[in-house]
Amino acid sequence: MNITIAIDCMGGDHGPAVTVTAALAFLKTHPDAQAILVGREEALASLVDEAPAGLKSRLRIHNATQVVGMDEPPASIRAKKDSSMRVALHLVKDGQAQAAVSAGNTGALVMISRFALKTFPGIDRPAICFALPTVKGHTYALDLGGNVDCSPEHLFQFGVMGSMLAAALDHNERPTVGLLNVGAEEIKGNDLTKRTAELLRASDLNYYGYVEGNDIFKGTTDVVVCDGFAGNVALKTSEGLAKMLGFFLREEIKRGPLSMLMGLMAMPVLKRFKHRANPGRYNGAVLLGLRNGVVLKSHGSADAYAFEQALARAADAVANNLIPRIQAKMEAMMGANGNNA
Amino acid sequence: MNITIAIDCMGGDHGPAVTVTAALAFLKTHPDAQAILVGREEALASLVDEAPAGLKSRLRIHNATQVVGMDEPPASIRAKKDSSMRVALHLVKDGQAQAAVSAGNTGALVMISRFALKTFPGIDRPAICFALPTVKGHTYALDLGGNVDCSPEHLFQFGVMGSMLAAALDHNERPTVGLLNVGAEEIKGNDLTKRTAELLRASDLNYYGYVEGNDIFKGTTDVVVCDGFAGNVALKTSEGLAKMLGFFLREEIKRGPLSMLMGLMAMPVLKRFKHRANPGRYNGAVLLGLRNGVVLKSHGSADAYAFEQALARAADAVANNLIPRIQAKMEAMMGANGNNA
Repeated sequence: MNITIAIDCMGGDHGPAVTVTAALAFLKTHPDAQAILVGREEALASLVDEAPAGLKSRLRIHNATQVVGMDEPPASIRAKKDSSMRVALHLVKDGQAQAAVSAGNTGALVMISRFALKTFPGIDRPAICFALPTVKGHTYALDLGGNVDCSPEHLFQFGVMGSMLAAALDHNERPTVGLLNVGAEEIKGNDLTKRTAELLRASDLNYYGYVEGNDIFKGTTDVVVCDGFAGNVALKTSEGLAKMLGFFLREEIKRGPLSMLMGLMAMPVLKRFKHRANPGRYNGAVLLGLRNGVVLKSHGSADAYAFEQALARAADAVANNLIPRIQAKMEAMMGANGNNA
Repeated sequence: MNITIAIDCMGGDHGPAVTVTAALAFLKTHPDAQAILVGREEALASLVDEAPAGLKSRLRIHNATQVVGMDEPPASIRAKKDSSMRVALHLVKDGQAQAAVSAGNTGALVMISRFALKTFPGIDRPAICFALPTVKGHTYALDLGGNVDCSPEHLFQFGVMGSMLAAALDHNERPTVGLLNVGAEEIKGNDLTKRTAELLRASDLNYYGYVEGNDIFKGTTDVVVCDGFAGNVALKTSEGLAKMLGFFLREEIKRGPLSMLMGLMAMPVLKRFKHRANPGRYNGAVLLGLRNGVVLKSHGSADAYAFEQALARAADAVANNLIPRIQAKMEAMMGANGNNA
């Protein structure tokens, strides 16, 4: 299968140094894939120059003169018609690529992609879905983006789209779906969770029931559904805790010469631990709900290894028909529920 | 100051083995304090028998024949008029103790204490406030309990009560208050956060502004306010992540004889790290909003060390006039805001 990925090479904290390196590594491991490197030609050309001919023949540079800043307001983003992010998304819109990947400004990516690639009926804003590491493997959690005011129908759609993502990427055709709540008992929760639970129960999704925050990293279900407020809190709190624990560990190691020696000796173990807990392994959040292309958001601080994971995941989503799967399921489910909200 | 704590000795996963041991340790370090051990007399008497006379003279056993189960439904809890939890709370109601501490069923503790000890005007259910460890020290976060449907006025009251708790326990008279949100910018958030921010800004609390999930463990503010849904998600997700990381670390250490040796050598460092990250150090969540007494909820799985911390914190809250402080501030603030909702 011939897959082309449009890469916003200017986005993220490190720009082309990371994105172009990752693109070359990705092409090496994906001999059928092609890449369009979008960004300032002069910044990209020198990085590509030394690549082997076998890779060069499968990539091309597409010039885009502007860059969306990490904290730029919407009006100013809209005015940048030649930003690398917008141009990459329009390459997907025009059918020159099937997926776009960016490490840039999340809000801008959501905003431009919903206009360029359109959303499914009833979906105002694409949901952002992360694969989070668990004791057992990983769990797809959504929405971890900006949908802070959700209806039960929105959360139900997240369940449908998350299930299709697990099916496409993990070949898990009956992924279990949990609904994030403050307790597992049926009487727990607020009006939103109770009404969403009814929709999920009545559907033909593999609905597990309520799950709690600790179930995410336990891997209790394959998919965890929540509104963007709770999801953002869960994700950011986890990031904060992981950083604090890392800080504590470094402080304890640096406490004196003896503990430094002990820390040094345990370094191989700590390194493997760090690799396993490294969120970069799971880099690449999928924007779900877009009708005309796959869009992945890489973490802004991603290194080349992490950015390459996002590219690989984008290719995987295209190869496994993520969008047609979602489309078919959405049509079937929304019909079955008599619901096209 | 003469402080008496009523202890629900039957609650929690371990019952008297933990609670009585903790009570004796607490009395040892608090020579002015007294304890009423509430529970089945025959279960408690033998544990107390061997205590030194100096401690024995400051404690008494109060018989209570029933125990509230961890998953018992409300109707059945209400029927247990002689449960150790209810009797302990009624000792506070009757003025025989100033504080009650329990490691039992949270829902039951909230339910019985709001009936026995009453709440301040406008507060339906007490909020649950945890001290969470941070890079800098600790942060008081509330509500981490059951208030899943909050109005802006509720969140505002949480800000008032959290501030008074920081003032009472840390002698921090101008604690900073952050409002948990999905971004720091003013336009971020939902209707609830926006309206709450207005109330906090207009008050004479030391309002910092919006904070995100990662700010909790960063210690950006002394107090973090959120509704019980987001708070529960943040707390449980953190618990889940900490467990997963612990699991990964143990697995990496056990991977082979060499890594086991390395892990063994690093054990003193890992132990100090574990102590520092140990949530038991911060055990004892305060039920805020009760008018006639201090109530602390210990983690159900607390060991004697952790349960002792909860007892010490209860004594500290009484000694530093937590309830009168909250009462005075609530009256002043609700007046100032023309708001007695």
